[in-house]
Amino acid sequence: MTMEKIEIIGMVAAVLTTGSFVPQVYKTVIEKSTKDISLTMYTAMFIGVTLWFVYGVLIHSISMMLANGITALLLLIMIGLKLKYK
Amino acid sequence: MTMEKIEIIGMVAAVLTTGSFVPQVYKTVIEKSTKDISLTMYTAMFIGVTLWFVYGVLIHSISMMLANGITALLLLIMIGLKLKYK
Repeated sequence: MTMEKIEIIGMVAAVLTTGSFVPQVYKTVIEKSTKDISLTMYTAMFIGVTLWFVYGVLIHSISMMLANGITALLLLIMIGLKLKYK
Repeated sequence: MTMEKIEIIGMVAAVLTTGSFVPQVYKTVIEKSTKDISLTMYTAMFIGVTLWFVYGVLIHSISMMLANGITALLLLIMIGLKLKYK
C-alpha cells in the first residue's frame, strides 16, 4: 500500500476519534446529566491527549497537533459539564 | 530534545489515553447505568481506533497496534454495557 493511502486511513481515523466527542458533548448539553460519566476517565484522557499534542509539536506533526488540540478542547468542555451537572 | 525523551512522552500519553477507559468501564460495571453515555461517541471512537490499529499495522508500529488494540477492546466492552443497561 502506498504512503498516501496509509495517510488517508490515518486521517479518517483522526476525524473519527476526535469527532466522536461531539455527540457526547451535544447529548450532555441537551440532557444536563452526567451521573454515568467518569470524571477520572475524562481527566486522564485530557492529560494524555495534551501529552500527544506536545509529542506532535516535538515531532513537527501538524495533524497530531490539530487532532489532539481539538480533542483536548472537547474533553475540557466535558470536564466543565461534568463539574457543572454532577 | 532527544528522540528517546520524545518517545517517553508518547508512551506516557498512550498509557493515559488507553488506560482512561478503565475507570469508565469499572464505574459502569458497578453502577449498571449508562443513560448519560453517548452510544454514537463510543461507536465512532471504536471505528476510529480500529483504523488507528490498521494504520499501526501498515506502518509497523508495535506501540500503535498495542495501544489501539487494547483501547478497541475496552470500547467494545463499553458498547456491550451500553446495549445491556440502556
